[in-house]
Amino acid sequence: MESDSSVLLTDLYQLTMLQGYFDRGMEETAVFEFFVRKLPPSRGFLMAAGLQQSLDYLERLRFTPPELEWLARSGRFSRNFVDYLERLRFTGDVHAMPEGTLFFPHEPILRVTAPLPQAQLIETRLINLLHFQTLIASKAARFVLAAPGKLLVDFGLRRAHGAEAGLMAARAAYLAGFSGSATVLAEFLFGVPAYGTMAHSFIQAHDDEREAFINFARAQPNNVMLLLDTYDTEAAAEKVVALAPRLTAEGIAIKGVRLDSGDLGDHARKVRRILDNGGLTDVKIFASGNLGEGRLRSLIETAAPIDGYGIGSDLVTSADAPHLDCAYKLQEYAGRARRKRSEGKATWPGRKQIFRRYGPDSRMIEDLLTLDDRSEEGEPLIHPVMRAGRRLAPPAPLTELRAYAADQLAHLPEPLRGFRDVPAYPVKIAEALTALANKVDAETRLERPK
Amino acid sequence: MESDSSVLLTDLYQLTMLQGYFDRGMEETAVFEFFVRKLPPSRGFLMAAGLQQSLDYLERLRFTPPELEWLARSGRFSRNFVDYLERLRFTGDVHAMPEGTLFFPHEPILRVTAPLPQAQLIETRLINLLHFQTLIASKAARFVLAAPGKLLVDFGLRRAHGAEAGLMAARAAYLAGFSGSATVLAEFLFGVPAYGTMAHSFIQAHDDEREAFINFARAQPNNVMLLLDTYDTEAAAEKVVALAPRLTAEGIAIKGVRLDSGDLGDHARKVRRILDNGGLTDVKIFASGNLGEGRLRSLIETAAPIDGYGIGSDLVTSADAPHLDCAYKLQEYAGRARRKRSEGKATWPGRKQIFRRYGPDSRMIEDLLTLDDRSEEGEPLIHPVMRAGRRLAPPAPLTELRAYAADQLAHLPEPLRGFRDVPAYPVKIAEALTALANKVDAETRLERPK
Repeated sequence: MESDSSVLLTDLYQLTMLQGYFDRGMEETAVFEFFVRKLPPSRGFLMAAGLQQSLDYLERLRFTPPELEWLARSGRFSRNFVDYLERLRFTGDVHAMPEGTLFFPHEPILRVTAPLPQAQLIETRLINLLHFQTLIASKAARFVLAAPGKLLVDFGLRRAHGAEAGLMAARAAYLAGFSGSATVLAEFLFGVPAYGTMAHSFIQAHDDEREAFINFARAQPNNVMLLLDTYDTEAAAEKVVALAPRLTAEGIAIKGVRLDSGDLGDHARKVRRILDNGGLTDVKIFASGNLGEGRLRSLIETAAPIDGYGIGSDLVTSADAPHLDCAYKLQEYAGRARRKRSEGKATWPGRKQIFRRYGPDSRMIEDLLTLDDRSEEGEPLIHPVMRAGRRLAPPAPLTELRAYAADQLAHLPEPLRGFRDVPAYPVKIAEALTALANKVDAETRLERPK
Repeated sequence: MESDSSVLLTDLYQLTMLQGYFDRGMEETAVFEFFVRKLPPSRGFLMAAGLQQSLDYLERLRFTPPELEWLARSGRFSRNFVDYLERLRFTGDVHAMPEGTLFFPHEPILRVTAPLPQAQLIETRLINLLHFQTLIASKAARFVLAAPGKLLVDFGLRRAHGAEAGLMAARAAYLAGFSGSATVLAEFLFGVPAYGTMAHSFIQAHDDEREAFINFARAQPNNVMLLLDTYDTEAAAEKVVALAPRLTAEGIAIKGVRLDSGDLGDHARKVRRILDNGGLTDVKIFASGNLGEGRLRSLIETAAPIDGYGIGSDLVTSADAPHLDCAYKLQEYAGRARRKRSEGKATWPGRKQIFRRYGPDSRMIEDLLTLDDRSEEGEPLIHPVMRAGRRLAPPAPLTELRAYAADQLAHLPEPLRGFRDVPAYPVKIAEALTALANKVDAETRLERPK
């Protein structure tokens, strides 16, 4: 269906507004920025993600002939306007934070500078792409901070919200520090290492659990991970011990076992004891089964002998905060700064830059949100990535972005690494920005009575 | 990228298990069923959805040459096995509830009967497709029950979890009774009526709000919905009243206004008064802006003069319950019923049917979960939809499914229409089913010591 690349993956109002801009020849340069208004409860930071897919989208943006015909037939638009859509491409500039950058409320992570209709049309899909991967990378980072040294694997495809969600969750989780994903397509397309064991149905389809273990080991001799909980977890662990010599004789080593139900900490202790007593001290224990952040943290805190975790629904739906309060807002048009002043939703006008400052221990201490033309002390976070509709550099390998994200997490101040009562990170608003906001407000007031 | 149709959109373990089945020639008939284990908190029912996309997926299932090459190169699979995958198609049967059917925990909504490897391979994507649309249709049905007679429009694409989520949420919400969606592609592909107004950026890009209103009205003379809250909601309503005669003279009628921030009930009352005093009694008031179930219900309860609602993130992420505890489990293999007995996750074995019974007021009173070969009093809910890999009938028009879903909601007993302290609907387990479960348990126990 290729629905993920259709320009019609947008809100109808983008097209009706474009007709309005077209009729009035409003094609001057607009500046829009994408930012998050506030953090979800108990969250201390967000991690930017989804930039590569956003740039892909902008590079490929065009209406197909069937889409154009359909728009013309819909009776909503003029023929001239549909002809104009046929020629429409994205020719603008994009500035952004690299994927993996940590950020905070009101800090733009992406800026589009383009003729108004182009910058407007892309709003819906751009938010859709940036919002979701940012949501998942930010959630995944919490698991990564909660489980240092553990293998973390995304198991979420089945309960992710559709195909793209499953695929992009695998990418975003890997970016944030997960070891890999069960999703095969994520390895095929993005090189996210694929992990896999066996399902209960494999055991059930055999008349005997032990026979199922043997068949699986022979079919996947380099990746023998046996699932223990189909009938009785500890009894299955005993079977694994009994089987091991026979498999060793065939040159097959059992790599690990998986627990998927019940009290995972309790089972892990019993299974570890059974395996150790059977001489299988090298066999790893892997746990899964509706594992959310809370259960994972409690398993870690109680030192459950579990080497790795498969995390599904809680990760890929960001269950504690399944959406972010984010927006893509017009900040400048035709050379003049603009500002939305709706109650509770006012924005900072103009093109912005963020300077990040670090303490002597190299941990982040403060960000300064200011205008783009200012030079300030600190590390600037927004960089040019696309000019005139073309990427300035080929996409960075995901492993490189992943290393950058790990480095970002290493600079996160201690109090922000927590899971409850997380303090707000200081984002200072520069005087230049406040002054501009006041100026825009004053101008808007003057115009209102006209 | 066409990622939504790739067979690699699956968990790695499906492929490693298939290698195991292939090595042992395990190709006998397997029966899997998809069901939900329990309802989310405060929910009384679920609505089945996603069947059409599941059947599309099964009809098109095949590995592409690049995918096969990549699998062969991965070193995980034998050459013979990859050759076998090249020929693999779905040749099985599917039985299912029609989309829009209301259902309850442990009731299968779909059954696959196919050679084991085929039925196994499709698990991940089938769950992914059925889970998400069922999740959204079920959530949308709550909005529909909460707001009788109101126009409800899906505004969620931007914060849906990716492209497919946005698109399928539009479809599922329309199925459940929404009037339409802002997502253009949902009209293009599924005929879901597209709705649209204007965004704040349209107003901001003009030097004057009134000028923006005029330009929009002229560009979309048949769909004039004006957004009031960019600067000051009531002041904007006054401008609409002042403008109306001029637009009327041009033959343009203002259809509605939209409120998007602040206390929506309070603004609606003030705006209604302004419009009515200005003679614009026919102009509808439409509200949006982070509207969740709770806020919508309180606006309805307080009789806010709002004619329609745009519902976004809360709907398309099913924010109170962003995932369902669902599963696709092996119930029979090679002619023998099978049962998983993991703690807290035990399943009912065998091929099942559900008979629904109605009271004299034609409201649902009870379901009976039994085996497929039984004939019982009541309405059977599971029907054949695919045989030997081919649909038994062309896809039903979405409007027809939508009418069926509305009829289902009309038969829902009163207590289940509530939002808090919803009682459990009675699903009786037939004796035949309990007896089969006991038999399977006894057989499994017998085999364990072997």
